[in-house]
Amino acid sequence: MVDEKMYELGTKKSTIRTIFEFGRKRAAEVGEENVFDFSLGNPNVPAPEFIKKAIIDIVNEMDPVALHGYTIAPGDPVARETLAKSINRRFGTSFAGKNLFMTSGAAAAITITFKALAEDGDAFITFAPFFPEYRCFVESVGARLDVVPARTEDFQIDFDAFERMITTHTKAVIVNSPNNPSGVIYSLDTIKKLTDLMRAKEKEFGHPIFLISDEPYREIAYDGIEVPYLTRYYDNTIVCYSYSKSFSLPGERIGYIVVPDEIADFGRIYGAIAGAARVLTHVNAPSLFQRVVAKCADMPSNIETYEKNGKLLYNGLIEAGFTCVKPQGAFYLFPKALEDDDVAFCERAKKYDLLLVPGTDFGCKGYFRAAYCIKTDTIERSLPLFKKLAAEYK
Amino acid sequence: MVDEKMYELGTKKSTIRTIFEFGRKRAAEVGEENVFDFSLGNPNVPAPEFIKKAIIDIVNEMDPVALHGYTIAPGDPVARETLAKSINRRFGTSFAGKNLFMTSGAAAAITITFKALAEDGDAFITFAPFFPEYRCFVESVGARLDVVPARTEDFQIDFDAFERMITTHTKAVIVNSPNNPSGVIYSLDTIKKLTDLMRAKEKEFGHPIFLISDEPYREIAYDGIEVPYLTRYYDNTIVCYSYSKSFSLPGERIGYIVVPDEIADFGRIYGAIAGAARVLTHVNAPSLFQRVVAKCADMPSNIETYEKNGKLLYNGLIEAGFTCVKPQGAFYLFPKALEDDDVAFCERAKKYDLLLVPGTDFGCKGYFRAAYCIKTDTIERSLPLFKKLAAEYK
Repeated sequence: MVDEKMYELGTKKSTIRTIFEFGRKRAAEVGEENVFDFSLGNPNVPAPEFIKKAIIDIVNEMDPVALHGYTIAPGDPVARETLAKSINRRFGTSFAGKNLFMTSGAAAAITITFKALAEDGDAFITFAPFFPEYRCFVESVGARLDVVPARTEDFQIDFDAFERMITTHTKAVIVNSPNNPSGVIYSLDTIKKLTDLMRAKEKEFGHPIFLISDEPYREIAYDGIEVPYLTRYYDNTIVCYSYSKSFSLPGERIGYIVVPDEIADFGRIYGAIAGAARVLTHVNAPSLFQRVVAKCADMPSNIETYEKNGKLLYNGLIEAGFTCVKPQGAFYLFPKALEDDDVAFCERAKKYDLLLVPGTDFGCKGYFRAAYCIKTDTIERSLPLFKKLAAEYK
Repeated sequence: MVDEKMYELGTKKSTIRTIFEFGRKRAAEVGEENVFDFSLGNPNVPAPEFIKKAIIDIVNEMDPVALHGYTIAPGDPVARETLAKSINRRFGTSFAGKNLFMTSGAAAAITITFKALAEDGDAFITFAPFFPEYRCFVESVGARLDVVPARTEDFQIDFDAFERMITTHTKAVIVNSPNNPSGVIYSLDTIKKLTDLMRAKEKEFGHPIFLISDEPYREIAYDGIEVPYLTRYYDNTIVCYSYSKSFSLPGERIGYIVVPDEIADFGRIYGAIAGAARVLTHVNAPSLFQRVVAKCADMPSNIETYEKNGKLLYNGLIEAGFTCVKPQGAFYLFPKALEDDDVAFCERAKKYDLLLVPGTDFGCKGYFRAAYCIKTDTIERSLPLFKKLAAEYK
């Protein structure tokens, strides 16, 4: 009666959903303030005041027929030109509006890109730990996801493993830096090694291998660490960006795809992206928010709270005896679990109402994800509980 | 390098796009006011003032973290409950929020529904004349679109042809009333015959046949003609609604799917819809506009201009010697072309800068579509040109 695969995807509870529901149940029993929910990657910093001002100014000033009407499929030309120039100012690139395709956030951007590129027998590579929806999205376009095991000492890239995995079937490599769930930013050294190796493999195989940069966390980087803009290092790069985290607008579904002129065949790739957006009914991203993000293109992200939270949680965990790569960006820590079985560890943490997500969910057993986009006070009050949890393992 | 089908879908110019570009070229040559573009189905009535007020009130009053944050995948529970109650008040139904799944407009709603339902070898049936994207969307989920030829005397349904076409492979029947491009509303008699026949076929084949009601034009109905609410006539109905036309918000991508409790298996179908929305990255429709449409749920559509335009154009065309079914709803007329070859007819009309879309594009040769969601003055000034065009055929 229905597509069984869709039924399964729509009804099978994710680990995070199960944890969330457990948290709601516990909140009813012990009080909201006594549940320490580190499971959800939802921005808790409000959208900046300039977003509100932009919305009000735009609806007051613009003709509603133009404002709420259809834009052309890739998005409003003025908004795209404005965003392209803003990217150019920041990263020394030279995009025009025609290089951008506005999308309903990064999830739509990557799915459209996968759909545009995937041919029969294609594989996409990503690196553990990784955002689990990649598998769902890649498989939904009929391709295979190959996962390079994590380099757990720093969550940069295990190049030997990567080189063994890349084959003539590899259509593209997906990177996500700052990373969900590790919070790590790929260093310039990592990017150079990665793109050198990909270029060598392109030459060896005689066809392009695309680099898909999934960048919802680009703006959330600490201590002045630079997140390399990948089109500058590799011609066959496609950038998938979202304002969900940078401006705290996850519900508004607004982002874009960048296809640089330097890519193997701009016309074919941009054309296939337009076709994929059409069949996935993602043409014309929400029109008010196209104008809102264009108006706010050069405005900064507010990352102060995330930075403070990240350091607080990191120091607390280190003090409690955990090992963890230092927070560099995004709003996640990915510490080592205190037993090999990360699922059992996260179960045990529930005793203290500490809600954590097993690393297994992100393709990296033996670790756990703690999202710190929550109240600073909650993190402070959680630290003695992490200590108690750690004490159980001593 | 790319999916060839996507490249083709993204780059092949549609007839309407080609006409639009011709129109732009002519506007540059002879002046905007001398081009009579009846080709585009974009609302020209501005979004009502209450929409603007709702946007401003909501951004001023709601916590931005809740307002712009992720809603659950099917949409904000409060918004869905509010919309369900509004539907119930109008149509005597008994939906709750759980029966609704918020979507990015009707295109997303129907594509999600097709994806949720389609299994190997399935066919979907629709009735000519029909919205050409149905073919693209149905084929993109691996199913086949069967088209019942038009009953041209009134653009209701040719039941003999329909009965011959419905088979054990028929998964669903798609209806669009008020219709794009005919402007016709299916009468209660048509709906009763259709649903009786479908029920008989369900019994004969031993499996459900779904009725998908694509309703972006529901509110645009003239002279008090009632558009029957189909869940009241057939249990296995899925309603796909959009605010694109009713509130002139096509760019904002907001609508919903209704799955009634009475459907063959609510849990399986709603579950498959959730899964399809997930793989098509359509979970969480734009969050501000979920609240905006909920706040304006009981507000009326402004159809005055469309009604006036429709009658003006209809009377003018009849006077010029055309034959055409009287405008009942939506904002299209679908008159008979003055020669059998509708493409040649529309080419000839271009001589007068009358831009019309051949019926062939909608699966109905020998007719043409004239969209009257344009300035009333433009229609008035076009009438002498339609007369000149008709005179050529005398």
